[in-house]
Amino acid sequence: MTDLESSLATIMEVFHRYAEKEGDKHKLKKSELKDLINEELPALTGQVKDQATMDSLMESLDTDGDSELDFQEFMTFVTMKSCDVYP
Amino acid sequence: MTDLESSLATIMEVFHRYAEKEGDKHKLKKSELKDLINEELPALTGQVKDQATMDSLMESLDTDGDSELDFQEFMTFVTMKSCDVYP
Repeated sequence: MTDLESSLATIMEVFHRYAEKEGDKHKLKKSELKDLINEELPALTGQVKDQATMDSLMESLDTDGDSELDFQEFMTFVTMKSCDVYP
Repeated sequence: MTDLESSLATIMEVFHRYAEKEGDKHKLKKSELKDLINEELPALTGQVKDQATMDSLMESLDTDGDSELDFQEFMTFVTMKSCDVYP
């Protein structure tokens, strides 16, 4: 596997590891996204400390309005944050 | 760095390595995208063999119509392909 392929596989693996915890196994609930950020993206932890910020983050990402993030919506999130964290 | 952070850093690094080759250092031209796919995503090489397929792929991804892919457009591509290659 190339570095790019293994990186994509890692992102999919991390997404599914948190998505599988509760409810729909292929989507992240707000609590699962919060856990993922706290444990896997520590640089962003400060951004999800209060409920209001978490709510608005989820709302902005949840483009199909089902209160959960599918993989595509999650990738929009990590793309946005990649540009912040790794300019 | 967590696995997710290092994976995102790798994706950014690969994107920039190819984007820097010619023209705009922060965008992928069609030829740079083709090189990236051939060398970093060998599972997809078959999909970019002929010019027509490469043209339509680029057109579908190039949402701002500047004939190049910025990082966000590139991430849409890898998201789509992640779902194909790693269901």
